[in-house]
Amino acid sequence: MTVSRTVELEGHIIDSGTMGNCFGAVMDMGGEFEVEEFEVGRHKHAETYCRMRVMAETEADLRAILHELNQQGATVADPRDATLHEAPEDGVVPVDFYSTTNHPTFVRVDGEWIEVEDAEMDCALVVERGEPEDGERPRVQTKVLNAVEEGDLIVTGESGIRVEPPERPRNGGGSFGFMQGGVSSERPSASLIEEIADEMREVRETDGNVLVVCGPAIVHSGGRDALADLVREGYVDALSAGNGFAVHDLERDLYGTSLGVDTEKLEHPRKGHKHHIYTISEIARLGGIEEAVDEGVVDEGVMYECVSNDVPYVLAGSIRDDGPLPDTITDSIEAQNAIREQAQEADIVLMLATLLHSVAVGNCLPSTTKTVCVDINPATVTQLLDRGSAQAIGMVTDIGTFIPMLAEELLEE
Amino acid sequence: MTVSRTVELEGHIIDSGTMGNCFGAVMDMGGEFEVEEFEVGRHKHAETYCRMRVMAETEADLRAILHELNQQGATVADPRDATLHEAPEDGVVPVDFYSTTNHPTFVRVDGEWIEVEDAEMDCALVVERGEPEDGERPRVQTKVLNAVEEGDLIVTGESGIRVEPPERPRNGGGSFGFMQGGVSSERPSASLIEEIADEMREVRETDGNVLVVCGPAIVHSGGRDALADLVREGYVDALSAGNGFAVHDLERDLYGTSLGVDTEKLEHPRKGHKHHIYTISEIARLGGIEEAVDEGVVDEGVMYECVSNDVPYVLAGSIRDDGPLPDTITDSIEAQNAIREQAQEADIVLMLATLLHSVAVGNCLPSTTKTVCVDINPATVTQLLDRGSAQAIGMVTDIGTFIPMLAEELLEE
Amino acid sequence: MTVSRTVELEGHIIDSGTMGNCFGAVMDMGGEFEVEEFEVGRHKHAETYCRMRVMAETEADLRAILHELNQQGATVADPRDATLHEAPEDGVVPVDFYSTTNHPTFVRVDGEWIEVEDAEMDCALVVERGEPEDGERPRVQTKVLNAVEEGDLIVTGESGIRVEPPERPRNGGGSFGFMQGGVSSERPSASLIEEIADEMREVRETDGNVLVVCGPAIVHSGGRDALADLVREGYVDALSAGNGFAVHDLERDLYGTSLGVDTEKLEHPRKGHKHHIYTISEIARLGGIEEAVDEGVVDEGVMYECVSNDVPYVLAGSIRDDGPLPDTITDSIEAQNAIREQAQEADIVLMLATLLHSVAVGNCLPSTTKTVCVDINPATVTQLLDRGSAQAIGMVTDIGTFIPMLAEELLEE
Amino acid sequence: MTVSRTVELEGHIIDSGTMGNCFGAVMDMGGEFEVEEFEVGRHKHAETYCRMRVMAETEADLRAILHELNQQGATVADPRDATLHEAPEDGVVPVDFYSTTNHPTFVRVDGEWIEVEDAEMDCALVVERGEPEDGERPRVQTKVLNAVEEGDLIVTGESGIRVEPPERPRNGGGSFGFMQGGVSSERPSASLIEEIADEMREVRETDGNVLVVCGPAIVHSGGRDALADLVREGYVDALSAGNGFAVHDLERDLYGTSLGVDTEKLEHPRKGHKHHIYTISEIARLGGIEEAVDEGVVDEGVMYECVSNDVPYVLAGSIRDDGPLPDTITDSIEAQNAIREQAQEADIVLMLATLLHSVAVGNCLPSTTKTVCVDINPATVTQLLDRGSAQAIGMVTDIGTFIPMLAEELLEE
Repeated sequence: MTVSRTVELEGHIIDSGTMGNCFGAVMDMGGEFEVEEFEVGRHKHAETYCRMRVMAETEADLRAILHELNQQGATVADPRDATLHEAPEDGVVPVDFYSTTNHPTFVRVDGEWIEVEDAEMDCALVVERGEPEDGERPRVQTKVLNAVEEGDLIVTGESGIRVEPPERPRNGGGSFGFMQGGVSSERPSASLIEEIADEMREVRETDGNVLVVCGPAIVHSGGRDALADLVREGYVDALSAGNGFAVHDLERDLYGTSLGVDTEKLEHPRKGHKHHIYTISEIARLGGIEEAVDEGVVDEGVMYECVSNDVPYVLAGSIRDDGPLPDTITDSIEAQNAIREQAQEADIVLMLATLLHSVAVGNCLPSTTKTVCVDINPATVTQLLDRGSAQAIGMVTDIGTFIPMLAEELLEE
Repeated sequence: MTVSRTVELEGHIIDSGTMGNCFGAVMDMGGEFEVEEFEVGRHKHAETYCRMRVMAETEADLRAILHELNQQGATVADPRDATLHEAPEDGVVPVDFYSTTNHPTFVRVDGEWIEVEDAEMDCALVVERGEPEDGERPRVQTKVLNAVEEGDLIVTGESGIRVEPPERPRNGGGSFGFMQGGVSSERPSASLIEEIADEMREVRETDGNVLVVCGPAIVHSGGRDALADLVREGYVDALSAGNGFAVHDLERDLYGTSLGVDTEKLEHPRKGHKHHIYTISEIARLGGIEEAVDEGVVDEGVMYECVSNDVPYVLAGSIRDDGPLPDTITDSIEAQNAIREQAQEADIVLMLATLLHSVAVGNCLPSTTKTVCVDINPATVTQLLDRGSAQAIGMVTDIGTFIPMLAEELLEE
Repeated sequence: MTVSRTVELEGHIIDSGTMGNCFGAVMDMGGEFEVEEFEVGRHKHAETYCRMRVMAETEADLRAILHELNQQGATVADPRDATLHEAPEDGVVPVDFYSTTNHPTFVRVDGEWIEVEDAEMDCALVVERGEPEDGERPRVQTKVLNAVEEGDLIVTGESGIRVEPPERPRNGGGSFGFMQGGVSSERPSASLIEEIADEMREVRETDGNVLVVCGPAIVHSGGRDALADLVREGYVDALSAGNGFAVHDLERDLYGTSLGVDTEKLEHPRKGHKHHIYTISEIARLGGIEEAVDEGVVDEGVMYECVSNDVPYVLAGSIRDDGPLPDTITDSIEAQNAIREQAQEADIVLMLATLLHSVAVGNCLPSTTKTVCVDINPATVTQLLDRGSAQAIGMVTDIGTFIPMLAEELLEE
Repeated sequence: MTVSRTVELEGHIIDSGTMGNCFGAVMDMGGEFEVEEFEVGRHKHAETYCRMRVMAETEADLRAILHELNQQGATVADPRDATLHEAPEDGVVPVDFYSTTNHPTFVRVDGEWIEVEDAEMDCALVVERGEPEDGERPRVQTKVLNAVEEGDLIVTGESGIRVEPPERPRNGGGSFGFMQGGVSSERPSASLIEEIADEMREVRETDGNVLVVCGPAIVHSGGRDALADLVREGYVDALSAGNGFAVHDLERDLYGTSLGVDTEKLEHPRKGHKHHIYTISEIARLGGIEEAVDEGVVDEGVMYECVSNDVPYVLAGSIRDDGPLPDTITDSIEAQNAIREQAQEADIVLMLATLLHSVAVGNCLPSTTKTVCVDINPATVTQLLDRGSAQAIGMVTDIGTFIPMLAEELLEE
């Protein structure tokens, strides 16, 4: 063990798991540690402090270990300012750039700890010094790779960076508590729905922002009317979905009971079918969803309520889309940017029966945003939570019963 | 029952299920039928013929029933030419346009049955009359909605259209036989892999085209080296994937065993992490995958073998991508068009552990293209087969054992 | 093709798929067929008749084909009486015994077609001639292998046996219609629940028998109270479950909110834990569930309502049980017999979130009993339906929302 | 907080998570803690010591908290002997009996710490004092509820009991390391199989005992021959399965290629079918599997190799069985006892594609037994690991490719 460095941790680091994770990471990565100082939090509200020296065989190993510890919340003791290097080209980061977590993060610039704006995982950190003579403080922002511009000042290494992973809350915290996450297949569905309703009500009362991410199964499984009710009654502040969700919703309005024949009863294994395509064609002819609402062609459903109640929506395109609708953003970078904006404004996010769109939204969320993932497939919920915020809760249930029960809870009071 | 029309069916329509489906569709949709003539195929190779009158309450109901029957293979008796209407605008189809199946389809134009080029589901049929005086015959092509141009002659109604759904083959047909499809969780894995290898060998010997659709799980689960071998040895003619697959493949090359620490052993629930992003940054710096191979930065793996062996690939973007790589097509319509070209050239398609890309490819495939869907999640396989071709077989297995066993079968002879 | 035999089919055999299945089976099994007579049903209510000669290479192949055709509903033309052989020992059937389907079946004995009592799949058919001189007609019963006794007259071969698989009903039949089965993940949940409630109401009004098969997830997911309500209000005539369901139900009563600490909130990955075991111990001390209810120790929940309302229950043991309770039948043959009795009396069966017990009940059901399988895991529903009756419907949903919504539908009218 | 007690923890309690779990449990259950002494382990090999006072509102709350802490490894400071009460009746435990974990456990009897024999979860602890005058030391054994006899001395409360949950090993430990468990869908399949082969080889070289738990999918998916090879070559010391596995294995031998018709190709959704039942009948006629092997009727397959190589097997009955075979133990308590014996002798357990039997075996295993759970359904693997030992690893893969690759690894060296 020829190289070493000293790091510090502070907070509820034992019961939040941070301390154990750090010891484990050092050992797993072939390093050693020597605790130099340890002051245990003697009761529930007291914080623990640890200073330890981390040793490794090579400088490269040590950096890898430090990167891992940093992301767990450890900071290099006796910190220097963060190291900055210019991006050599658009879309290119310097060697050893710092890749972000989704936790609150602070960067030391010119001796001062600056909080990173819009925490988001897997981004570069870009420092803007501003004009100190004009009294401007430096700013640090996250930038996804495709937004990095030549000359951007990018944070590299692990010095001068502090991450604050979520801690186990001292008050339990209910279903939205610490790492309650996991997949709650064994918790009573009805009481979980009540808790989610409570959170939504609270967000609404504090003028917060509820973002709903929607998959097409909402329409097939019969959750559409209840979701439209929630939009109309003001429980949804923004909607994120794909082309498919919008088309199914509009098609149900245009053709749901047409022809005297309930076309839903037939077996239609194919993705599209005539009404689906024709719905897109009709909306295209009119110029878009808003125009279709204005002309009275569309007069019910989720998209209708969004337009009527000024709830902004993002429809992101994908390679499996039919059409798509004129409203659908077909470029994935552009769509991601639109989703990013929604994600950063949200106070609570409901992800309903869509893997692709939920992952896309989840990628942009800070770990402090409350998140609920609902899907009938436990693999979807697990995959979302694994990437997601520690405050996220997952619920394996039927979206076709979940939304009506949630709406009943919220609307019938 | 005030309106009626007479349709005909011919072929192995009893054991292929067509006849039963047609009777069932009429009854389910509230109609009645009267069989006017029925000549049963008396032995295995004899075809059955049926002419029946279909009755419904209203003209609209009748058209809905006829549309359904047509897609099953019934044709209107005493056919007229197909009805044609001009597309009123770009991306807009006339009312009552004919929405395609993925089966071989023929359209009667000027008294002549013309085979539709590039059969694909959920498209409009566009007729080009050409210059008859120059001896040109009319052509009929499929167009997805976004490719429809103002003035295109679009087929509407059901007259003058004949669909040929797949029939139960008379020789059994092995695993790729009729509707053997379904999900084969109860068939011996090793012998299914042998059959797939046999098909691939046969396609190769007849200079056919093998398209492989790849998900990132191939890399995680350890199927990457065997797939690279298959590409190098000429068993793959085209590759379709997303940005994520390519980045994971390249990252494994650049960082797989770096640092003296096997970074794979650590728990990395997050989508990206540093090496992932830095891999994209490096490839971007060099200008793309081909440039990275040329400069020797990338010297093994699936993408390397594709470049080295001139195997064309399409990387389609999605909203959950990091980066993306310069090679990734970020516009979903453009990406769909590139996928469509791959799909139409393929003689056999292997869909490996990716729902999104498999659905996108499957949407463009004619029902006559052999298709194998491999995934550990039965829901993925079911979803693909439900939309797919009747020749498709699904296999619920581990991609990390499937590809090595397939490669062993193909390469060690 | 050196051997042949002639079979007949009659009924709605085209749209019910029977005819196609028979042609397909002959070809798949290497035989040939020659249709000798075919009279198509010319309209919805007319039946089709087919007589065909089936040919095979060897007598053994022919018998295998005939067995398959017989189970699809084909009968040997010019039938003789069924062939009978004595069972050589207890639990042993003669070579070439006839293995039953779960469809209505008739056996020709002494020139007379006798309907099989208690149709059940995978059984032997045992003929009792009775005393003809006393005017007794012969009886034919199903016997599972372990019930076969030395000397029983067992039906062998395929002669003199007629099976009536379900046909596509002429009136649509709603969700409980023909092969609507499959897994309804794309049908609106709330309206499916309404249809199930309608069926239950109808069964109740006609003094029919509702059997509910229960898994422990009912308790964990919060469906227990609503199910107890349904029992109390007379919507359940019999209950079938395992030891685990009963213990969880009783434990919730005895310990649900005890200790001032909601023990449900803690992570208890282990199967049992203290309260679970102690619940069993307590019930054992009292002598059983009924005694515990009588002594007032148990005063709410599903088992309580069963005892209080004289709803008979079967608790079948399994090797993963704790305890078990004194009420649990630990011998699997004895338990099967108790389940068989429940199954044969049922007019409708609700299988709720249990694979093992649902399969056990399903094994004993005739194909004419209406069956609903509800589970959040589509694999469970598929597995149950594959073995089940053609009238079965599957619903992939959350039992914790399903039961409350069903109870609301039934009780709040 | 009116009542309190002091507990101690010692070991690698920070990185093994014990310390954090204990703090968390106290807070979750409404208590408070006061750390009285804390000596951190300053480097990798140094242990940590903690003494803390735990406070609660009521004595009942305190006991509940202490029970939880005890199971995590905390012991009451200044321990007294364990409290013993007599079992009031057969199958009945005293109030407040101690319910076991599956970790190594020690009980203080007459001032001496006695290790519990055959650690198993959810049992009572029974003390036998023996004859001290004859130099016999007391013994403490686990007993499941149904084995408890009136007058047994049962441990109650939490005093005088010490549990040793597994600690994170200091040397990494490979795939079988600490809590590497989880579901390894993202680890390379082939290298995991190698690691499992290494473990089996090591167990064999040290004369250890390999227990294989088998589901019927092994036969359907084509893993049967490779498993038979492993039995023949001495890699399997005991086999645990159900009636269904044995019947499918024997049937494949008796009828697999008979009739000149590959009956596997036909669709047989039903559980049994003729050959299945007749196989059972034939084995019953001969008296059992061993007799069938002796008479040469069965001459290949897994059960054949077990008999031929004296590998003992347990076939446990279930309510969904056909037959069952004479070898099947139909009483669930008796079957559990046979399984318990197998489990306690095993050094490594392979659970292959069976939920029911794997759970039954897992219930009897101490947490120190290496365990591998292999299933294509991640829910099965998760459910098994959640109950299982911390050394367990789960692998979501296809049993039909897993067993052949494992056999190739073990046999072709």
